[in-house]
Amino acid sequence: MREQQMLDAAVQIFGRRGYMAASMDEIAELAGVSKPLVYLYLNSKEDLFTACIRREAAALSEAVRAGVRTELPADRQLWDGLLAFFAHTSEHPDAWSVLHLQARTHGEPFAAEVAAMRAEIVAFVNRLVAVAAREAHHDPDLTEDEVAGLAQALVGAAESLAAWANATPGVTARQAAATLMNFAWAGLGNLMQGHHWTPSEQDA
Amino acid sequence: MREQQMLDAAVQIFGRRGYMAASMDEIAELAGVSKPLVYLYLNSKEDLFTACIRREAAALSEAVRAGVRTELPADRQLWDGLLAFFAHTSEHPDAWSVLHLQARTHGEPFAAEVAAMRAEIVAFVNRLVAVAAREAHHDPDLTEDEVAGLAQALVGAAESLAAWANATPGVTARQAAATLMNFAWAGLGNLMQGHHWTPSEQDA
Repeated sequence: MREQQMLDAAVQIFGRRGYMAASMDEIAELAGVSKPLVYLYLNSKEDLFTACIRREAAALSEAVRAGVRTELPADRQLWDGLLAFFAHTSEHPDAWSVLHLQARTHGEPFAAEVAAMRAEIVAFVNRLVAVAAREAHHDPDLTEDEVAGLAQALVGAAESLAAWANATPGVTARQAAATLMNFAWAGLGNLMQGHHWTPSEQDA
Repeated sequence: MREQQMLDAAVQIFGRRGYMAASMDEIAELAGVSKPLVYLYLNSKEDLFTACIRREAAALSEAVRAGVRTELPADRQLWDGLLAFFAHTSEHPDAWSVLHLQARTHGEPFAAEVAAMRAEIVAFVNRLVAVAAREAHHDPDLTEDEVAGLAQALVGAAESLAAWANATPGVTARQAAATLMNFAWAGLGNLMQGHHWTPSEQDA
């Protein structure tokens, strides 16, 4: 309970000030506890930062997983997953800044924590693309490497778009998800022809 | 001339060992010069790393720009740009590791150097998508924010895919470019139906 409070404060300060500039004094003050208590619970600034990364990586993975129902068609799963991802990153911009920016900018041990979460999300998307290819009845002509590459491309696109959406006033989670869904599902060629992806009737 | 030799050696060592583990001794030895000479030319490990980032960022931007002829149709420009990008990153894996991984993992001054190059590439892709939308005759119904979001998605996808391709034996630059071109232009929905993007006759 108290630890959660400290982590809440730490994510906010790390996300807004950056890892280097964040001070343990400020984190303790925002959490409403003494600085010795923060050290007692979390040991050091590095350990506190690592605990933040782990908690926020787990929360993001969980949010995406909870948003997707695997019994639905692949395009619907992708849409739900994207919506859950962008909703979470826009509702927790400090957490996203910690994961996407701070954790990757301050040394390899922190970067490795994020890389592990990323690998999980890539594996999840990989399965989704593979299932979609099987569902399509046609011989989809996609090799294992192509499926893996598509999963990497999709995750990279989502990360890049989330950072941009959080930094751009007026762009909602839904708009970011719709932009990426159209890009991923329909492709630029179709978009240029005015063909957009739309959720099916049942989803209204 | 001598400076280029030192930078060549530094990019290789930084890319393979990582910024922290890279030693100035090893860099000097690989460059075939004395360590004092490296310090004389490049001043410090930090300045040497910054010089590597700047040189490699400029080389990558230039390679992409040189690959694209702006008088061609948008899909062809995108294909040529992707091919140039993946050819460069696969031919210079150490440089890509410096830019994509090392420069973003070791503090904000280095990360800012890469962010500047990235902003340039995003602006270039942004123009390309906007031109493509205009070319399409149809009212493409794409707002400025959607075009900007698509450019972010495309660049993020390319970065992610390049890192994966360099780490995956047997994936060529051409395959990586084709995977992303199909994803970006035709979209997953079309790929699942067995519809791929193919270069037009004139490009054979």
